[in-house]
Amino acid sequence: MKFELVKTDPASAARVGAVTTAHGVFETPAFMPIGTYGAVKALSPSDLRAAGAHIILSNTYHLSLRPGTDVVRAVGGLHRFMGWPGPILTDSGGYQVFSLAPMRTVTDDGVEFRSHVDGALCFLGPEEAVRIQRELGSDIAMVLDECVPYPVERDIACQAVDRSIQWAARCRAVHASGEGPEALFGIVQGSVHEDLRERCARELVRIGFDGYAIGGLSVGEPAERMLEVAGFTAALLPEERPRYLMGVGTPADIVRAVARGIDMFDCVMPTRNGRNGQAFTSRGVLRLRGARYREDAGPIEAGCPCEACAGFSRAYLRHCVNVNEMLGLRLISLHNVTFYCGLMARMREAIRRGRFGEFAQAFLQRYGADGDETHEE
Amino acid sequence: MKFELVKTDPASAARVGAVTTAHGVFETPAFMPIGTYGAVKALSPSDLRAAGAHIILSNTYHLSLRPGTDVVRAVGGLHRFMGWPGPILTDSGGYQVFSLAPMRTVTDDGVEFRSHVDGALCFLGPEEAVRIQRELGSDIAMVLDECVPYPVERDIACQAVDRSIQWAARCRAVHASGEGPEALFGIVQGSVHEDLRERCARELVRIGFDGYAIGGLSVGEPAERMLEVAGFTAALLPEERPRYLMGVGTPADIVRAVARGIDMFDCVMPTRNGRNGQAFTSRGVLRLRGARYREDAGPIEAGCPCEACAGFSRAYLRHCVNVNEMLGLRLISLHNVTFYCGLMARMREAIRRGRFGEFAQAFLQRYGADGDETHEE
Repeated sequence: MKFELVKTDPASAARVGAVTTAHGVFETPAFMPIGTYGAVKALSPSDLRAAGAHIILSNTYHLSLRPGTDVVRAVGGLHRFMGWPGPILTDSGGYQVFSLAPMRTVTDDGVEFRSHVDGALCFLGPEEAVRIQRELGSDIAMVLDECVPYPVERDIACQAVDRSIQWAARCRAVHASGEGPEALFGIVQGSVHEDLRERCARELVRIGFDGYAIGGLSVGEPAERMLEVAGFTAALLPEERPRYLMGVGTPADIVRAVARGIDMFDCVMPTRNGRNGQAFTSRGVLRLRGARYREDAGPIEAGCPCEACAGFSRAYLRHCVNVNEMLGLRLISLHNVTFYCGLMARMREAIRRGRFGEFAQAFLQRYGADGDETHEE
Repeated sequence: MKFELVKTDPASAARVGAVTTAHGVFETPAFMPIGTYGAVKALSPSDLRAAGAHIILSNTYHLSLRPGTDVVRAVGGLHRFMGWPGPILTDSGGYQVFSLAPMRTVTDDGVEFRSHVDGALCFLGPEEAVRIQRELGSDIAMVLDECVPYPVERDIACQAVDRSIQWAARCRAVHASGEGPEALFGIVQGSVHEDLRERCARELVRIGFDGYAIGGLSVGEPAERMLEVAGFTAALLPEERPRYLMGVGTPADIVRAVARGIDMFDCVMPTRNGRNGQAFTSRGVLRLRGARYREDAGPIEAGCPCEACAGFSRAYLRHCVNVNEMLGLRLISLHNVTFYCGLMARMREAIRRGRFGEFAQAFLQRYGADGDETHEE
């Protein structure tokens, strides 16, 4: 994996870059739609290409439970399995173990837990996490880290940072031995404590990774605090490596995080909210279930190139959501991913032209103070 | 609407025709995918075009309850509402009233019933049925008929035939006054009684319709009996009008019905069974949930031009069905509609070349005696 810094904004930390992987190039700032079970919900690979996605994220925890990494391997790896020939980033599975799996026991070795699918006893340590991601055929793998909730006692956050650093070093060792996927990213933890973030970042940079993620945010803290910590942490990371803010976020949060030097994002919002009938537009979120759209013959957003806006009215999409027709859920998801990927493309263009500040201000003003109200849902 | 008889098979009643409507031409034998709520489940209009569908069916009963005919009209009619520019046949709503609506009361005037959605009291008579279909903007409307279950007492079947004939005449009168959609089809009832079928067919032909449907079959009677009655009834209908066998059926039933002179079909099987993980192939039905497909890297059917077969393995589709990923349900539905429409195209080609008998024999042999086992599910 190669990261090339193409352009830096003179007035902020925003930047444009290009990441080259064995499965193709993607430009940053980049948004990664999430394919939890080897499919981005409701969308096909050709839908994703049409939406402007160049890299997707897939969840190791889910895939290793169903269908199992052996199946993915037998069919030729994750790219072939899911029909997506472009770059794939996989998470380590840690976040899901800490948020979904019942009866987990964490030791320095790793995490023992029960599958939330069939109750089977499983173990995930740093070595296993890297090996599973290699077996899946991931382009960019993530280290195993210990995730803490928010709010959390400082001691617990501190302990999680210690363990995350140790695990990161062990992941790196497996990767360095040639057993890992193409690239491995470290993950900075430390909750909202700047000294913990600083120590974690310093240690990870000492170990050395192909890129650095900022984890443990967007877990319930206020959006302003999230942006502060993300910006503080991003500034501690090497300029010549991509920076990935995990699990963020709303369009407004993403624009603000790009201004703070973040290059990569993932979030379930475009697809999850799409399935709930919420459509993102440059003027904020449309809640298509609303009676006001009952006879609205217009598209979600005029000028949007997606299949939903080209061929279907708000009235039709509202109807589909109300009667739970898959087509409507797919079309709104497609629109939302198109909106997110289009936003990234517009930011890259603005940075290239040295006008990111203007762009961000205009976007946030138009999007509106209430544009992100879905945040709390 | 114009029906042109293009070619008749010398050795059977099979025939090729072309139906011209204001929204385009479709050739017969034709299969109509069902868009109950203004969407063929899981599929977009461009999916349907790719699958080779040239006409679809939509359900008046469902659409009139949700979103309501006023909404469809306000947005410019059903074609624009659902984004399907080709021909649309609508049913009268009668079948759904008789099968879904609670607390119905049938009189000579029509049917009073409660909406299965919100319990509202509704009335559907022959005049209303034609007017609603006109409001939707249907290309081919169906008369209101009285549907009886199977088995049923002869007296009840006889009474339903009398009432269906009266209602058909009233529908025709509304249509003739210029208030109706482009074309109106009569529906022959009479359960499995040949004398009732004969009387009903004779009376409907006397009234005169643009096409004739055979209703009240595929409601639980044995497949052999269904084919006998369909063939007997088809032979009573004018050669120069299309014949539509409602609600049929499996691929094998369709091939056998074409041999008996049927031109048009509709059935939920390709989409409903697709959502259950059942894929139609020329060698019978694949039940993709089965463990045998766990690591099967092959497509549903080699040589099939659909997106599912071009890009995805049985193992992947099985996985999607098991974790309920919409993409898998869509892909299998797309394959199934492609299979059904492809079968119709192959039959048309065989009839044109004067080789329908050979084709049908080869198809049924290869499809297998158990190929249709989904019939009973």
